[in-house]
Amino acid sequence: MGYPETFEGFVVDSPKTWNQFHRHELKPKPFGDDDIDVQIECCGVCGSDIHTVTGGWGDFEGPLCVGHEVVGKAIKVGKNVTEIKQGDRVGVGAQVWSCLKCDVCKSKNEQYCPHMVDTYNANYEDGSTAHGGWASHIRAHQYFTFKIPDAIPSHLAAPLLCAGITTYSPLVRANVGPGKTVGIIGVGGLGHLGIQWARALGAEVHVLTHSAYKADDAKALGAQNVIVTSDDEKWAEPYKFKFDFLLNCADATHKFDMKTYLSVLKVGGEFHMCGIPDKPLPPLEVLAFMQNGAKLSANHLGNHQEMKAMLQLAAEKGIVPKVETVQLGEDGCKEAVERVKEGNKVHYRLTLTGFDKVFGKVEY
Amino acid sequence: MGYPETFEGFVVDSPKTWNQFHRHELKPKPFGDDDIDVQIECCGVCGSDIHTVTGGWGDFEGPLCVGHEVVGKAIKVGKNVTEIKQGDRVGVGAQVWSCLKCDVCKSKNEQYCPHMVDTYNANYEDGSTAHGGWASHIRAHQYFTFKIPDAIPSHLAAPLLCAGITTYSPLVRANVGPGKTVGIIGVGGLGHLGIQWARALGAEVHVLTHSAYKADDAKALGAQNVIVTSDDEKWAEPYKFKFDFLLNCADATHKFDMKTYLSVLKVGGEFHMCGIPDKPLPPLEVLAFMQNGAKLSANHLGNHQEMKAMLQLAAEKGIVPKVETVQLGEDGCKEAVERVKEGNKVHYRLTLTGFDKVFGKVEY
Repeated sequence: MGYPETFEGFVVDSPKTWNQFHRHELKPKPFGDDDIDVQIECCGVCGSDIHTVTGGWGDFEGPLCVGHEVVGKAIKVGKNVTEIKQGDRVGVGAQVWSCLKCDVCKSKNEQYCPHMVDTYNANYEDGSTAHGGWASHIRAHQYFTFKIPDAIPSHLAAPLLCAGITTYSPLVRANVGPGKTVGIIGVGGLGHLGIQWARALGAEVHVLTHSAYKADDAKALGAQNVIVTSDDEKWAEPYKFKFDFLLNCADATHKFDMKTYLSVLKVGGEFHMCGIPDKPLPPLEVLAFMQNGAKLSANHLGNHQEMKAMLQLAAEKGIVPKVETVQLGEDGCKEAVERVKEGNKVHYRLTLTGFDKVFGKVEY
Repeated sequence: MGYPETFEGFVVDSPKTWNQFHRHELKPKPFGDDDIDVQIECCGVCGSDIHTVTGGWGDFEGPLCVGHEVVGKAIKVGKNVTEIKQGDRVGVGAQVWSCLKCDVCKSKNEQYCPHMVDTYNANYEDGSTAHGGWASHIRAHQYFTFKIPDAIPSHLAAPLLCAGITTYSPLVRANVGPGKTVGIIGVGGLGHLGIQWARALGAEVHVLTHSAYKADDAKALGAQNVIVTSDDEKWAEPYKFKFDFLLNCADATHKFDMKTYLSVLKVGGEFHMCGIPDKPLPPLEVLAFMQNGAKLSANHLGNHQEMKAMLQLAAEKGIVPKVETVQLGEDGCKEAVERVKEGNKVHYRLTLTGFDKVFGKVEY
């Protein structure tokens, strides 16, 4: 078969063979009136993809097609679809469905809907499977499909759909803006976007990094100050009670001395985690929070309105991720997951491109 | 010597002899223009006293006089003192000094001042020692000395000065009031006050307790619903996304399944800890926070304005702790720390009284 009955994607079979991809037929959910079919042009590679294929977030049975930073062309739209037209260049992030009826959804927090469907490794209520974007096509509900502004090239737009919204949403929910002092922890796939959002929103932006060699990059991205936390175990002393908000974009949080990190927050300030490491947090004492009434928090993605606002801000201010591209294919998928797993081998996001060479051309 | 050169108190010598008190002379800080001397009428017994004398919060060298829920008569006021007059009935809580000059103090968060002086087991910048309230007198800065409303008897006012403010401040800082759904975890020395504040502030109040036999007390104190968390491991299911705010007043947080507790919060809701257990928090995964963007937080006491507002609310609405009294003395102090250490042997606060029988009468 083939589209529209089936899609094709690059899949892995189990965590044991996490870097061995092969081309495989994928059966999508039945097409619904709110659905949009997207012929995929390119797809980002996210830390979540690696956590999933390696089994870091739990075992799975393949064939599994990952990828949730999808950009492509809307080639079919359901009859209820209002904002997206056939032929539009659109993006799909890490969520493809929620009920839109429960109190959580009604409060514009559909990314926490208890009935939500992730973009892959997830099932719809009818039992059909959601397949990710390292594939020929993706089918998603219109509420989770977004028009990509013309100003942003596809391979740069892709990482915004997960890494972008994951770093943008907590900053706007914390009212980061003029007069606020923000620390971005970690200069990587998430952090290098967090720096740019925080600066674009008008905050005073400091970067905390373990890696002194990243200081120049951090400043080029907009950081007004860089604190190298590996230089001196007393790094926090000059910054006690300094920050309104810390956006933790580091994966190595389990190695953090949390009491020290929390100590640089203002009273009632927030240490916010937007990555999801494999490992648990380091041991925490209540006393660590009592230095300043600190808050520890995390987010999962952002909502529909935030996604639109983020894409608009990115287009207006020219905020894009730093992206390296890799040709989609068995070799390309293997290279992609291996490099992202290494962490320091990507500066700072990877997008799989050249889908047309594998599946045929996307014409807008 | 004796007052005003020295005070007298009941002290312990080390964590090894944590329940063996003896009467001892105490040298106060030099009297300053902002200081108030209080002849003590009674003093509450707080979990903190037990954590301190047993060494749970760290070793110490005695003689140590604990007690930081102090009520008595202002018998001497410094020339800068404005609101307290000689002869007033006043209270002193768990803090006796802060700089009142730094940014933290200026932001009305003097309870987090990096230069703060705790009521006992602490030194002033001049090297003199702060002594607690199981004593004849206490000397405290006017900013940390509060007039007690006439409506509140002394032995009931005492616990408000630490347990009261510790539970009141986080509720008002979280804007708990009409339209908010609040869970108070634990019905004990802290929790039984938390229930009353939350109800008086206008919230819908649920109590979460491991102890089914406390349900009647919880309802009598104002809880509209009691959730017995030991009845059923699925206790949280009906309450997913229910609470704006959870005030954790339990000491056994290390035994909590935190993912389950966090799961009953609304999106962005807060699990707030107001006790300080000896033991670290249970292991935490970032994913536990990602169910709903939960926040984990804690507080240390409250500020000057909150203390005044709390005492006024308590007087107006008749909110007082449930208090058992014990006669001050070597035996009384021993009985007090032993019963509070046992936890379930006090319903729900203890106040040491009869100071006049030991040190002479307080006349107002």
